[in-house]
Amino acid sequence: MWRYLLLSMFLFVNVNTHYLYQTKWFEVPLDHFGLGRKETFKIKYLENEDYWNKNEYGPIFFYTGNEGQIEAFANYTGFMWEIAAEYQAKIVFAEHRYYGESKPFGNKSLEKEYIGYLTSAQALADYADLINYLQKDEIKPRYPVIAFGGSYGGMLAAYIRIKYPHLVAGAIAASAPIHMFPGMTKCDLFNRIVTASFKRNFYCSENIQKSWHLIRSYSSSVNGSEYLHKTLNLCGASNATDINSLIEYLESAYVTLAMVNYPFASSFLTPLPAQPVAVVCQYLNQNLANESLLEGIAKAIDVYANYGKKTKQCVDYKEGDNYQNLDAGGWDFQACTEMVMPVCSTGQNDMFEASPWNFTKYSEDCYKKYNVYPRENMARLEYGGDLLQAASNIVFSYGLLDPWTAGGFISSVSDSVDVILIADAAHHLDLMPSSPDDQSPVKDAREKHKQHISKWIDSFRARNKHVVTYL
Amino acid sequence: MWRYLLLSMFLFVNVNTHYLYQTKWFEVPLDHFGLGRKETFKIKYLENEDYWNKNEYGPIFFYTGNEGQIEAFANYTGFMWEIAAEYQAKIVFAEHRYYGESKPFGNKSLEKEYIGYLTSAQALADYADLINYLQKDEIKPRYPVIAFGGSYGGMLAAYIRIKYPHLVAGAIAASAPIHMFPGMTKCDLFNRIVTASFKRNFYCSENIQKSWHLIRSYSSSVNGSEYLHKTLNLCGASNATDINSLIEYLESAYVTLAMVNYPFASSFLTPLPAQPVAVVCQYLNQNLANESLLEGIAKAIDVYANYGKKTKQCVDYKEGDNYQNLDAGGWDFQACTEMVMPVCSTGQNDMFEASPWNFTKYSEDCYKKYNVYPRENMARLEYGGDLLQAASNIVFSYGLLDPWTAGGFISSVSDSVDVILIADAAHHLDLMPSSPDDQSPVKDAREKHKQHISKWIDSFRARNKHVVTYL
Repeated sequence: MWRYLLLSMFLFVNVNTHYLYQTKWFEVPLDHFGLGRKETFKIKYLENEDYWNKNEYGPIFFYTGNEGQIEAFANYTGFMWEIAAEYQAKIVFAEHRYYGESKPFGNKSLEKEYIGYLTSAQALADYADLINYLQKDEIKPRYPVIAFGGSYGGMLAAYIRIKYPHLVAGAIAASAPIHMFPGMTKCDLFNRIVTASFKRNFYCSENIQKSWHLIRSYSSSVNGSEYLHKTLNLCGASNATDINSLIEYLESAYVTLAMVNYPFASSFLTPLPAQPVAVVCQYLNQNLANESLLEGIAKAIDVYANYGKKTKQCVDYKEGDNYQNLDAGGWDFQACTEMVMPVCSTGQNDMFEASPWNFTKYSEDCYKKYNVYPRENMARLEYGGDLLQAASNIVFSYGLLDPWTAGGFISSVSDSVDVILIADAAHHLDLMPSSPDDQSPVKDAREKHKQHISKWIDSFRARNKHVVTYL
Repeated sequence: MWRYLLLSMFLFVNVNTHYLYQTKWFEVPLDHFGLGRKETFKIKYLENEDYWNKNEYGPIFFYTGNEGQIEAFANYTGFMWEIAAEYQAKIVFAEHRYYGESKPFGNKSLEKEYIGYLTSAQALADYADLINYLQKDEIKPRYPVIAFGGSYGGMLAAYIRIKYPHLVAGAIAASAPIHMFPGMTKCDLFNRIVTASFKRNFYCSENIQKSWHLIRSYSSSVNGSEYLHKTLNLCGASNATDINSLIEYLESAYVTLAMVNYPFASSFLTPLPAQPVAVVCQYLNQNLANESLLEGIAKAIDVYANYGKKTKQCVDYKEGDNYQNLDAGGWDFQACTEMVMPVCSTGQNDMFEASPWNFTKYSEDCYKKYNVYPRENMARLEYGGDLLQAASNIVFSYGLLDPWTAGGFISSVSDSVDVILIADAAHHLDLMPSSPDDQSPVKDAREKHKQHISKWIDSFRARNKHVVTYL
């Protein structure tokens, strides 16, 4: 199942936002690092100059788009919009190559023969080119550029500061699992954090942990299978329950609930209430067994599948994740090449069935699909994991409720590479639009982000005075 | 003529060195930044472990090879060899892809269809891979790696520290023209520095400056042309002097003399005495005109063409530069893509004929040869020119007699990005084997390099104690 997780790093709360932007296009080379391929194509970017003090070189807030259509990131990264006026900033959201409408080969882009130029390095170089264009191709850039990103986008925000510090004055990297590559973090940590979220509720994780064996044993008899089908309200024929798909669906549901365990009601695949883990766990808050346990699971999963829907629907457990804003195919390729992020479960330290990380099988699956083997250490060699002692002007923020914090960089190197751990926060809550339900940790984090941003802008301006003019 | 200069950035003194190394090979992907091309090939590297204290994690001195066969760099970068014992260091010289024997497509590598993967970014990624291999692919590298390089190799040494600071603890970048790209430095600065070297000798630059018109006017008559041919001892038929080739040859000779104006006798294309500019200028040290001027030029050029030769030979002015250790074709392609370094002369502030920098023509010539147009701002976007405020642990050293200092980074940002200007030093003298004729400026520079190297190694070791171990 864990492969699918990688596709769901980015989820969106459904808030009522009406941010305005112009849609623009920018031409980039297919290959920034070689000259064998001469094609160019256009990436999309969204731009707003309403708050920009261009005359006094106001900053550019630049979102390094991740694995999905850029409008989604623009609509849900409220933090950038909310602070733009104060900084008199221009806002830019750049779409990642091969996602949304930024496809080098149109509809064929994800096919084997065309997908090879989907790498983070090429995407960063696209952004570097675009930033240079926004700076009018000037040798000495005038507008301080601040990069923002969440999840994979957060990795890109950090990486663009690391790789192109002459173009980017600083980066807010939210929930960026830069330390999630092979050999870095333990593969079960992700699911231990998921479990910890459920453990905050009496008996909840214990009941879920017990449920797997029970569900499998019910599914092995005709009567049991029909009971399961009816109690869990599953779609499909009652005598054809696909037990492995069902287990995967439930696992994925719990993971998703943990990731977006926000203090406000939110919506992505399916709408969820505020504090969704606690809501779900209210049906699992005593020591349950047998049919009462299955009924508890049924109620929990009904929240996941049906919250906010006008008419109750059956649980379509065979569908898998289907996040409308994300391009599963693109990310699957990235996960099969450089973004190898081992996830596993032990069944001991987490509430899931044991599911080891098997790189050999993973690798073979990738080869079958894309005719490539993963380059297991590619991201580490390119970006360094947590060996960031030479980096500067990056804030890494992580929510302590977010499973992706398993791949976090949790030790501040210096004031200029700072880590902010946000209590009671799920996946990149700090970048989302503010909400009356926000608690002080996320508010404090946003204040701290602003302090860093101000400092970076000031030091960019101070530095630029000293750039040498030649003869 | 100035195109040819780019090929001659690296020249070699012919010292009697007998450094010993093992020749090894390392497999790299053709394309590090995309997965469309799946070929791999091998780059060569030279290794010496005689001084290495492996058990106590002695450092690795890593030369980032430039545009030529790596043995030449190994044999002439005496500084690395001379300090290796003191640091108990392993020595590695890595050959740049597409040069020497590190050709991805064998003899076809420089053909249009195959040359596209000859870029600095790909070469740096080769070195990053190799360094990781030398570190045994460990997540937390144990051996501090110090990069060294001169000229284009110096650029690569600086760039690998900038782009891969997690792999390289520090870099000695000698005579690296990182600020030589379009819009950065004035294109005539290079030739003004050449001129300044000659100006240190009475009348010398003035005489050379006057000579062009005289040579052209002699060449325009049959008698004059024959006089020129005989006086300058030119090869070829006396009635078929190619005046433009002759002018180019002379210009190139003066430039080369300035670059390798070392305090000791040296040998590259042709052997030269110690202080070759002064030696040449002894024939031009009074106000000359007409035939006496041409005779002075003839004697000067005879030093360049015949010094140290057993039997005097005619001046083969049509041959152009033919540096045996450098691959002209490879560099010509790099100069036509990312390494666009404008050089011009005005005839006013320098001793040459006016020769403007004409990017349009340059660009069209490149297209004819390689079917690519130069990406004029590619190196700037990728490496930042002199906007190195975020960099650390680099020493840029420049000789004040070296024309390439025109593209130097001449303002120290901090103690950790230091600039050393070396009086009385030509092109990366500091990296060369020490000589009894060395003066105190270059000796002091080498001492300062060692201080930096020691500091980088110490701080690598201190840092590594603090790397977080995950759970």
